[in-house]
Amino acid sequence: VSQIEPGSKLLIITEKRKRYLVTAEPAKRFHCSEGFVEMDQLLGKEYGCVARSNTGSLWTVHRPSLADILMHFPRLTQIVYPKDLGQILVHSGLGPGGRVLEAGTGSAVLTCFLAHFVRPSGKVYSYDIRSDYIENADKRLIDLGLREYVELKLGDVTQNIDETMLDAVILDLPEPWRAVANAWQALLPSGRFLSLSPTVEQVVETVEALSNGFSDIGCVELLQRNIRARRGMTRPEFIMRGHTAYLVTARKSEKS
Amino acid sequence: VSQIEPGSKLLIITEKRKRYLVTAEPAKRFHCSEGFVEMDQLLGKEYGCVARSNTGSLWTVHRPSLADILMHFPRLTQIVYPKDLGQILVHSGLGPGGRVLEAGTGSAVLTCFLAHFVRPSGKVYSYDIRSDYIENADKRLIDLGLREYVELKLGDVTQNIDETMLDAVILDLPEPWRAVANAWQALLPSGRFLSLSPTVEQVVETVEALSNGFSDIGCVELLQRNIRARRGMTRPEFIMRGHTAYLVTARKSEKS
Amino acid sequence: VSQIEPGSKLLIITEKRKRYLVTAEPAKRFHCSEGFVEMDQLLGKEYGCVARSNTGSLWTVHRPSLADILMHFPRLTQIVYPKDLGQILVHSGLGPGGRVLEAGTGSAVLTCFLAHFVRPSGKVYSYDIRSDYIENADKRLIDLGLREYVELKLGDVTQNIDETMLDAVILDLPEPWRAVANAWQALLPSGRFLSLSPTVEQVVETVEALSNGFSDIGCVELLQRNIRARRGMTRPEFIMRGHTAYLVTARKSEKS
Amino acid sequence: VSQIEPGSKLLIITEKRKRYLVTAEPAKRFHCSEGFVEMDQLLGKEYGCVARSNTGSLWTVHRPSLADILMHFPRLTQIVYPKDLGQILVHSGLGPGGRVLEAGTGSAVLTCFLAHFVRPSGKVYSYDIRSDYIENADKRLIDLGLREYVELKLGDVTQNIDETMLDAVILDLPEPWRAVANAWQALLPSGRFLSLSPTVEQVVETVEALSNGFSDIGCVELLQRNIRARRGMTRPEFIMRGHTAYLVTARKSEKS
Repeated sequence: VSQIEPGSKLLIITEKRKRYLVTAEPAKRFHCSEGFVEMDQLLGKEYGCVARSNTGSLWTVHRPSLADILMHFPRLTQIVYPKDLGQILVHSGLGPGGRVLEAGTGSAVLTCFLAHFVRPSGKVYSYDIRSDYIENADKRLIDLGLREYVELKLGDVTQNIDETMLDAVILDLPEPWRAVANAWQALLPSGRFLSLSPTVEQVVETVEALSNGFSDIGCVELLQRNIRARRGMTRPEFIMRGHTAYLVTARKSEKS
Repeated sequence: VSQIEPGSKLLIITEKRKRYLVTAEPAKRFHCSEGFVEMDQLLGKEYGCVARSNTGSLWTVHRPSLADILMHFPRLTQIVYPKDLGQILVHSGLGPGGRVLEAGTGSAVLTCFLAHFVRPSGKVYSYDIRSDYIENADKRLIDLGLREYVELKLGDVTQNIDETMLDAVILDLPEPWRAVANAWQALLPSGRFLSLSPTVEQVVETVEALSNGFSDIGCVELLQRNIRARRGMTRPEFIMRGHTAYLVTARKSEKS
Repeated sequence: VSQIEPGSKLLIITEKRKRYLVTAEPAKRFHCSEGFVEMDQLLGKEYGCVARSNTGSLWTVHRPSLADILMHFPRLTQIVYPKDLGQILVHSGLGPGGRVLEAGTGSAVLTCFLAHFVRPSGKVYSYDIRSDYIENADKRLIDLGLREYVELKLGDVTQNIDETMLDAVILDLPEPWRAVANAWQALLPSGRFLSLSPTVEQVVETVEALSNGFSDIGCVELLQRNIRARRGMTRPEFIMRGHTAYLVTARKSEKS
Repeated sequence: VSQIEPGSKLLIITEKRKRYLVTAEPAKRFHCSEGFVEMDQLLGKEYGCVARSNTGSLWTVHRPSLADILMHFPRLTQIVYPKDLGQILVHSGLGPGGRVLEAGTGSAVLTCFLAHFVRPSGKVYSYDIRSDYIENADKRLIDLGLREYVELKLGDVTQNIDETMLDAVILDLPEPWRAVANAWQALLPSGRFLSLSPTVEQVVETVEALSNGFSDIGCVELLQRNIRARRGMTRPEFIMRGHTAYLVTARKSEKS
């Protein structure tokens, strides 16, 4: 796993810090706006090697992590960003062996992320009402070797959820409040409800729907600041993402 | 796993949203500043149940998640907060089967968190120079059933690291830059280096030490905002944590 | 104006960085939890002098700025914080000679602040429905020598505004949207509307009310981070204010 | 002052919320990427009027505020942003009649802003080592009718400051710490020192230089979040400015 071979997935980072996800192939070139490198030059080298492009600039070639790969998925929908993926995982209480429902599947970023962390004995039940998203998720999961940990389901969780006794339900839906009652049925006692929404109104509606049957209801938002740390010139980056989504969290309780 | 039994760990959340981590015991009372509940009243009930205290206030009783338990660990040192735990996990590239070095062990919050996520086939190598921290970690890990996934090591990573071919090295040390060379030796090609520090000067020193042998060097900081979402009164909380730590990240590269 | 005299207002900052606003008086002591100083020891000294307390700790004695004084006003209501005062002033387009309506008067923090900056030829019209707030504002303004720049008015701006051709209208009301129509009448063409509200729902309601007759409608929020800058230990403060208020801004336009 | 006349300064805001600062001129057109409007169509109308462009889109035409004009100044240097202008004004303790030194003049944004607020009896002493910046400031001040409130000085404040008994000194220099000693000489007892710097290292160096002769030393940073407030779709904007500058503040004290 240390050496680049034909078929290896590579994360190439150029001198200008652009990032590309490519597959190593003999006798091919990788081209981008900053020039190209011959792939043959990379085969047999260790990950982390430095390649010289035709223009003489130096690019590093890394083994991509799961998060790197997820950030290069085709964006069929608004995706979940790494800062929010980590937060979701911590709040979900999940881990290896966990059983979790996710809806909607969307671009399958969260699907793959959850599958990775419930391995080898857990399961992700991922619902979407669009078959093209389900098909895309199928491809993405197979490609990552995560297919066996996920059950992809064409269906609408506001209408029906087949599963019961789940550790967590995670919603990324335009109207998550409409799935709250079914989520309650599907969860274990004390099971975790999470919902990701970009707008305040979605948050308020969801929190209201949670008032019967859930407790410890909260809402958090993470702001990520990137710091340019160089001696004598250290400062936060001038541009930052101002918002991705709010995360609503709750625990299943007895109904009053 | 749905019912509260003698010996069950409980997260009790009072009407004033105070949180207590307790163990269910027959014929005992749980006391806090808001009153008490008889534990016998909880035994046999499902998690998520509502208990009435002697003062008539309503408390919910939940199965604690790993993060709940970690936040109630004795704080021997500055601990790692949930927002940073999630971020570390995502940036580390770890998952089930991962092999990771952590130093220092400190209060064992990150130790237990990592152990949970590298299960069942991975391993955490956790170093500290203080034997009392190692002993505390031993207790915490046994209590959580995570002991077998961790090798606790009394030692100084700035002097020596025994392991090689690690997926990730995660430092929470006052002078992380002094461990950078050993981290490089210990990592797989493209392996991940992470370091958590509260001050800007630590970040700058560490980034500088990484300049030979690491690439894709970055630094991020997360700000967590809690939102009080109630229809007609929705706003961010007035008080927030202004800072915990900066996270420096890098990938092992070939040395120049 | 450089020397402390009987009757001088003083800002005393203790060794523990507590801040007190006091008046210099011969033969008196200033007491706080950290000890006391004899006022006679301060009279005749220059502002910025260092006084030794009876316990031997060193306190600095400064001429208070307007903002210092405002932050020590009796808090009859939620006050406007310095970060928001500056923002309001910039967005209002005001300056010396400006004519501005403010409602409600509340604790008179914004009243005094605006009066200070429209001097010597401008005027603040400050409305409140509570006569006790008006009386408090009267005292505060006299004490600061700003009374002549303000017209205090017992009245409800959602019912009536007497003034016309104002440069700006600034609302700090529970239901600012109910005053939007009167604000439009009272403003100069292109005059500025500003409204400060703690909750999102107030913002949305206000923005909606502005849709006929106002343009360039925006909403901003400022987060203030205090940095502890000391060589080798520089970091943001651990505790910060998470929220004060949203500022809605708009410009009067022709009605459609 | 309500009607648009030949020579009036206009702020034109297009349907896509682009902003242009233009001067009304008979028989001319204002062109931008979204089309054009005939200026004759605007003359005689009130500010705040809506103009229909040749493409049928609706643009509003406003009287620009000082901040609008400042944000359209030629950017010879990094400028000071509105959020920081307000903060500076509040912390400076200035107001009508104030006497303040500023260095460097740079793009003259802060110069004009301060001049506006110390009117009619105060004075801004603005130093720069570059004569082209001084010449630009001269033009900008004349254009805004603020020239008489400013003394523009070609000079280096780290070498010499002519003035004494100033209310405030405000630095926007690459090495502000080199001007601290002269600032102390120039200030009134208890006078305010402010310094704006983009990097942490500048802040630390400045704070250190302030340790003899200044007290109540602080450092603040403001993050501005723009909120898109529309019923049912309210959320913070996705893109935000991540950083502009840190503001160091202090008060002149007796030297130890």
